[in-house]
Amino acid sequence: MSIAVYPGSFDPVTAGHLDIIERSAKVFNKLVIAVLVNSAKTPLFTTEEKVDMIRETTKHLNNVEVTSFSGLLVDFAREQNANVSVRGLRAVTDFEYELQIAQINSKLNKQLDTMFFTTSIEYAYVSSTIVKEIASYGGDVSDMVPPYVEECLKKKFGK
Amino acid sequence: MSIAVYPGSFDPVTAGHLDIIERSAKVFNKLVIAVLVNSAKTPLFTTEEKVDMIRETTKHLNNVEVTSFSGLLVDFAREQNANVSVRGLRAVTDFEYELQIAQINSKLNKQLDTMFFTTSIEYAYVSSTIVKEIASYGGDVSDMVPPYVEECLKKKFGK
Amino acid sequence: MSIAVYPGSFDPVTAGHLDIIERSAKVFNKLVIAVLVNSAKTPLFTTEEKVDMIRETTKHLNNVEVTSFSGLLVDFAREQNANVSVRGLRAVTDFEYELQIAQINSKLNKQLDTMFFTTSIEYAYVSSTIVKEIASYGGDVSDMVPPYVEECLKKKFGK
Amino acid sequence: MSIAVYPGSFDPVTAGHLDIIERSAKVFNKLVIAVLVNSAKTPLFTTEEKVDMIRETTKHLNNVEVTSFSGLLVDFAREQNANVSVRGLRAVTDFEYELQIAQINSKLNKQLDTMFFTTSIEYAYVSSTIVKEIASYGGDVSDMVPPYVEECLKKKFGK
Amino acid sequence: MSIAVYPGSFDPVTAGHLDIIERSAKVFNKLVIAVLVNSAKTPLFTTEEKVDMIRETTKHLNNVEVTSFSGLLVDFAREQNANVSVRGLRAVTDFEYELQIAQINSKLNKQLDTMFFTTSIEYAYVSSTIVKEIASYGGDVSDMVPPYVEECLKKKFGK
Amino acid sequence: MSIAVYPGSFDPVTAGHLDIIERSAKVFNKLVIAVLVNSAKTPLFTTEEKVDMIRETTKHLNNVEVTSFSGLLVDFAREQNANVSVRGLRAVTDFEYELQIAQINSKLNKQLDTMFFTTSIEYAYVSSTIVKEIASYGGDVSDMVPPYVEECLKKKFGK
Repeated sequence: MSIAVYPGSFDPVTAGHLDIIERSAKVFNKLVIAVLVNSAKTPLFTTEEKVDMIRETTKHLNNVEVTSFSGLLVDFAREQNANVSVRGLRAVTDFEYELQIAQINSKLNKQLDTMFFTTSIEYAYVSSTIVKEIASYGGDVSDMVPPYVEECLKKKFGK
Repeated sequence: MSIAVYPGSFDPVTAGHLDIIERSAKVFNKLVIAVLVNSAKTPLFTTEEKVDMIRETTKHLNNVEVTSFSGLLVDFAREQNANVSVRGLRAVTDFEYELQIAQINSKLNKQLDTMFFTTSIEYAYVSSTIVKEIASYGGDVSDMVPPYVEECLKKKFGK
Repeated sequence: MSIAVYPGSFDPVTAGHLDIIERSAKVFNKLVIAVLVNSAKTPLFTTEEKVDMIRETTKHLNNVEVTSFSGLLVDFAREQNANVSVRGLRAVTDFEYELQIAQINSKLNKQLDTMFFTTSIEYAYVSSTIVKEIASYGGDVSDMVPPYVEECLKKKFGK
Repeated sequence: MSIAVYPGSFDPVTAGHLDIIERSAKVFNKLVIAVLVNSAKTPLFTTEEKVDMIRETTKHLNNVEVTSFSGLLVDFAREQNANVSVRGLRAVTDFEYELQIAQINSKLNKQLDTMFFTTSIEYAYVSSTIVKEIASYGGDVSDMVPPYVEECLKKKFGK
Repeated sequence: MSIAVYPGSFDPVTAGHLDIIERSAKVFNKLVIAVLVNSAKTPLFTTEEKVDMIRETTKHLNNVEVTSFSGLLVDFAREQNANVSVRGLRAVTDFEYELQIAQINSKLNKQLDTMFFTTSIEYAYVSSTIVKEIASYGGDVSDMVPPYVEECLKKKFGK
Repeated sequence: MSIAVYPGSFDPVTAGHLDIIERSAKVFNKLVIAVLVNSAKTPLFTTEEKVDMIRETTKHLNNVEVTSFSGLLVDFAREQNANVSVRGLRAVTDFEYELQIAQINSKLNKQLDTMFFTTSIEYAYVSSTIVKEIASYGGDVSDMVPPYVEECLKKKFGK
């Protein structure tokens, strides 16, 4: 039985993240989406809001759970009995960083392997950072996030 | 049920390939290793020799099959009812090429997704091409291929 | 007045090339598409067939000319009074090679600058090489080339 | 008629930027240099100082205008009736970021295309960040910025 | 006589840094390890602690000196009569940045050349940033830093 | 005492190679330039011509020797008592390949380390392949090779 974790900031979840989630849910028996609580960064959304947005937009997927964690991914994965960490890859600079993290994680937890999907071409340009930038100026992000997240962004920016 | 194909030239199979095979066999229910018959290239080993070397070095893995194919991977995957194509990633230039192939394949066969493992760090420098180059000059490749393949290389090069 | 050349092998012209051609035709007063005659490579199509396919698929563009050349691009551009060489960029490895060529060309012909478009996202995976590979196995390339080129490929491969 | 915008931080304008400006001014009918007002960053120079330095060093170019903007580039370009956004490319990591931005912008404003020049080789190492770092320690930046900007840097750092 | 400087933040020195130091000490007559005092960043360790950790872990190397510097590397190298700056390279994005710095430095000090070692494969994943992140959560970094540095990290994080 | 080898095809030696040679000759006690005899490739110049061109253009350097070798670099380096292999780096794709070779070589010969110089900016665009391409069409390569090599190229191409 394959249990995968999909860790990330998800500030907020985008159409690109959902694409990875739906494809992972087909391949693994169970997928745990894990929102990283990182005290060093100042996110736009609270951890609760992030978890809520992912739950709302993945409720059609039976084998998906959404939660949050702090600390090292390898420790969280061990608690979840996960044997795979799932990551999406977009660009070459992503790849190098992800490669380094995958190597560190396999060193720290020998039971945890990392597998990569490449982002579907129609979401290759989407990132949470760009979505927030465009939404903050009232630009149209309806192709980049699910409708529920679009609403949450409008509320945040008061537009 | 997840059925994965792992396509490649495998001329010959290396310790790096075996690392990907063993890790894939843990994640997927069934793994089909598929030697690509490419009439345009002149390989060192025949297709039969390549298949034999992989079978010999993966016989401890129950859910692994070894075969060969010609034509498009997407057609072969459809015949095998595979929903995942597995690829190993080593370097940035690998990544770009693999990304392009993954996008083409998902366009040609919507049922086939591509997942990537990154090569374990101890095999990051190993490739079939380098193994053949070193073996052709009588250099030591015992860390780079399984013992059975090392013997096959010695026979080929008459050393 | 800006006169641009767009040099390439075009073996055959793809939907990605046409995208660059249409976008260039909007920006420059005149665009000269220049099929490189390279005796060192064995193309699938003859130079005449390549020129014919481009003419047929660009006849709706008034300020576009199609021709062929051999020798150095910088000499051809000088004959055409062109001040810009247009290139499409897809990937990081493309970029490095193109950067080197642009620097050499600006050294050899100070009147010739190089400008780059990035491939539209829906054609990011398309290349002449991949189109030929897929068409040779009877795969579907209708999204990757114009209908006229699709017919030419079918004739070539007798399918 | 081709109208191009060249957006950037220009904190301060460097010899590399001027190289792109002079080459763009030859290709397009009109070039609008647009200093981005980004409230999130703390620049060394004020927007007014940045605009002044660019005006002073481009006054020999008839078809160049200098101004500032805030918000999304696609909206600013629409107001200016610009059909091209000009960008300079130096390195591979630049390229990936610029590619993403170009794709987002073409999605948000279909009338706006992005064209890239590669930095001339003698300015390949120059960036505003490095210029400020060197100037802050009293190092020699006379090859990296125009004389007027060198004076402005000396005043800023009181040297 | 070759005198090399090896500049860096060393916050803290890692097994990867030590690998570069030991290899450099074999090639050059004298090696000066130079801790950069950068007022803009907030390091975990003080400059004194950083110098102490490097001295402690390099005391078996006769031709190595450890010191700190502020300002431009090229000025420091001139004071030390150094003709080489040594850098370790891990990844492609490292490489681009390092290439730019090497070009700037050779411009500012013609007597100073830059030479690169690539990190040994077993330390390819190690960086000061990742070491601090793992140590802050009580993770095991004994393969990534010398024992003396591991102790210093435990004291810092009170674990 | 540091003895370095600088291996390569040198078909022919370019101004970029000479730049690396002169810089290496300053750092190492002795530099052995080693022309690789590769039976698989068809070079423009014979091994004797290649060695002759390098000897002719490096005769002002006292600590430089020029020779040829076949087989594995690690074996040749051992015979020469060399402890360093010198390589020039130009681009990101160069870097990845060179990194792989460096790791293989350090595995095969623990006494041999690899050090990299980055090409000086004025030669960043120069390669033997491009020099041959331009010279074959009678283009001007006087900035890219020493005068003696320019003469040899003219003789080869009968121009």
